[in-house]
Amino acid sequence: MFLALLQAPATASHTDTLAPVVLALAVILAAAKLGGDVAERIGQPAVLGELVIGVLVGNLPLLGVSWFQFIIANTTIGVLAQLGAVILLFEVGLESTVRDMMQVGMRSLVVAVLGVITPWALGWWVGAMLLPEHSVYVHAFLGAALTATSVGITARVLKDLGHAQSPEARIILGAAVIDDVLGLVVLAAVAAVISAADSGTALSYGALALVLGKALLFLFGALALGVVLSPKMFRLASKLRGSGVLLATALVFCFTLAWLASIIGLAPIVGAYAAGLILEDLHYRDFAKEERQLEDLVRPISSFLVPVFFVLMGMRVDLGTLARPEILGLAAVLTLAAVIGKQACALGALGSKLDWMSIGIGMIPRGEVGLIFANIGLTLMVAGEHIIDAATYSAVVIMVMLTTLITPPALKWSLNRRRGR
Amino acid sequence: MFLALLQAPATASHTDTLAPVVLALAVILAAAKLGGDVAERIGQPAVLGELVIGVLVGNLPLLGVSWFQFIIANTTIGVLAQLGAVILLFEVGLESTVRDMMQVGMRSLVVAVLGVITPWALGWWVGAMLLPEHSVYVHAFLGAALTATSVGITARVLKDLGHAQSPEARIILGAAVIDDVLGLVVLAAVAAVISAADSGTALSYGALALVLGKALLFLFGALALGVVLSPKMFRLASKLRGSGVLLATALVFCFTLAWLASIIGLAPIVGAYAAGLILEDLHYRDFAKEERQLEDLVRPISSFLVPVFFVLMGMRVDLGTLARPEILGLAAVLTLAAVIGKQACALGALGSKLDWMSIGIGMIPRGEVGLIFANIGLTLMVAGEHIIDAATYSAVVIMVMLTTLITPPALKWSLNRRRGR
Repeated sequence: MFLALLQAPATASHTDTLAPVVLALAVILAAAKLGGDVAERIGQPAVLGELVIGVLVGNLPLLGVSWFQFIIANTTIGVLAQLGAVILLFEVGLESTVRDMMQVGMRSLVVAVLGVITPWALGWWVGAMLLPEHSVYVHAFLGAALTATSVGITARVLKDLGHAQSPEARIILGAAVIDDVLGLVVLAAVAAVISAADSGTALSYGALALVLGKALLFLFGALALGVVLSPKMFRLASKLRGSGVLLATALVFCFTLAWLASIIGLAPIVGAYAAGLILEDLHYRDFAKEERQLEDLVRPISSFLVPVFFVLMGMRVDLGTLARPEILGLAAVLTLAAVIGKQACALGALGSKLDWMSIGIGMIPRGEVGLIFANIGLTLMVAGEHIIDAATYSAVVIMVMLTTLITPPALKWSLNRRRGR
Repeated sequence: MFLALLQAPATASHTDTLAPVVLALAVILAAAKLGGDVAERIGQPAVLGELVIGVLVGNLPLLGVSWFQFIIANTTIGVLAQLGAVILLFEVGLESTVRDMMQVGMRSLVVAVLGVITPWALGWWVGAMLLPEHSVYVHAFLGAALTATSVGITARVLKDLGHAQSPEARIILGAAVIDDVLGLVVLAAVAAVISAADSGTALSYGALALVLGKALLFLFGALALGVVLSPKMFRLASKLRGSGVLLATALVFCFTLAWLASIIGLAPIVGAYAAGLILEDLHYRDFAKEERQLEDLVRPISSFLVPVFFVLMGMRVDLGTLARPEILGLAAVLTLAAVIGKQACALGALGSKLDWMSIGIGMIPRGEVGLIFANIGLTLMVAGEHIIDAATYSAVVIMVMLTTLITPPALKWSLNRRRGR
């Protein structure tokens, strides 16, 4: 236990950095199970309960109780939450295969493209209407912040309700992955245009093409190479002695693709989802000695880490922002634009018996990409004007929060509506 | 995915802090399984392979390769490693009950007390012989740094070799827990004596009694209360809806006790081990709906996190220190004193058919507490003299490293010797 070596603790406490983390994990897991229980009792997916109890615990300071604020500030808990999202997407990916995805590939592409263009246009228009004093760059940027779907919530709801293997689920998740790539390109494009406008230089189309090329290369390269390499890798690994080799090999594969995705500039969860898609039972048939399926081995890890993601996500919602009426108007309109804009995705189900409404609703949640846009907007300037000011930033945050909270009940309603027929 | 919110990323990379963590985890897990495979092929416990491959990877900079140094510096990986130790001790604790421990309690106490007094005296004597120019405080402190057993290595070897439920294992692990408490008291005592000597004030016996009292209160209080409360807690939890409730409840219990231990100033792993001891199958019989045993649910989490602890522990060994002959002499003698001193523990097996040699060997590894002593020694001064200087510090680090590396093969040899009879 060399750990203390690098920490030079001043007291007899052995491992100072561990104590807040284990306390935070105990609080989060207890809260998650209580919240999930209440949600299931009123017929909602467990994830809604985890989010809401997170919002409640995170906003206790409004009642003067600040006991749990250390959880939000703890960087390790933040990374564990992201690791939870990686494991969740890997687990969801495991339930489908690359072949399944290919079958819905064209529809996913259509859904993704519609789901980027429509909210972008709507957001642009809303910006032009409500913020006429700002430049066209602000309006374009605001629209861009509405484009990318955050797939974690939808993946979890589909999983909670046992729909993770439906064609609709594959279309939504595939579209969310493509969305992430398109969002990246849109961000690069808008940022490049704004920088060029501010500095008066020419726009670099080369840089744009590079971003798009890298992203496409990753997606198709990883899938193609992975399908070829994964069986070989597992065959080699199956020759290793020791316990837990199957799980370790799968995690190495998942974490490597997550890292490669982040190197390209994509979300690590995109890599984790790709890893899950690539892995098939066939690849690890040589592990017959392991008594359990890979899915059974991953589930306890996801039971442990995934609630950290959702409870923390709820805790980071600041209800205080809802009390500012001047922001609330813009936020409400932005949220409407975000929700309505994604309903265009339903057109991707045209000419099929697919559940078009669930596809539109499943694409609603925004998250990290919207917030990254807003964050970058805070730093970008054109002619001395900030692209995103503090009020607009808060409005984007509220939009992200609302789309996150309305999706679980809406998606559950929509899936059940169809099942009931 | 609100994560980006607090990070204000400057680029399109979604989650900057996650990328190095997933890469580090992929490298660590791959290295652990390769090292474990080689160790098992040459008939050694997997943990030795994980330690040694960690040493190799961590010292690649000696060959000019610094690719993996970011792993050592990453604080999240450091916390995950500690979390791995917590999960390991919880898992080992699950294999025994409080009643099992009570049966070996007196022997554990004898083993622990012998295992503190003998190395302390030996270390004191070695200090007086080799460092005559230093004060008696330095010698006393050096001896104190040899007292506390690091239970992680031994627990893992016993587990790797299927001995985790033997009476010897219980005696060693129980003694290591008591050691931790005694080490705390020794540290408080020595530090108090030195502070009093330096400032010329009277020694505070009250403060010493407080440390001892808190530690004993925790141990007996946690065990007694836990045995009463745990069945009630699990009965309540079994009424919760949702998936993964049994695992989450057990983890909440484990993390809460680990946190309580650290509040008292004990190692979190002591709390985790106590939690594992307290939990019995009986407590969660209401979870009949869960198809699996708690042990099966914890195992994938330990397969994931425990190797992080051991590989990182190996990586933190700096082979460069071995090249300094002036330190090597003191380090070799200290290591001998540490190893021989703990063999007194074997006396705890007197008058029984217990494997006395394995008990002595199982108590050899030192770790965090020794390093904490050394770290505190770096800051303590008497009459302008540092209690521990840089050379002595390096010698203590080498002692920790050597006791860690020799234990797995020695313990395996000793356990098999007896089995062969």
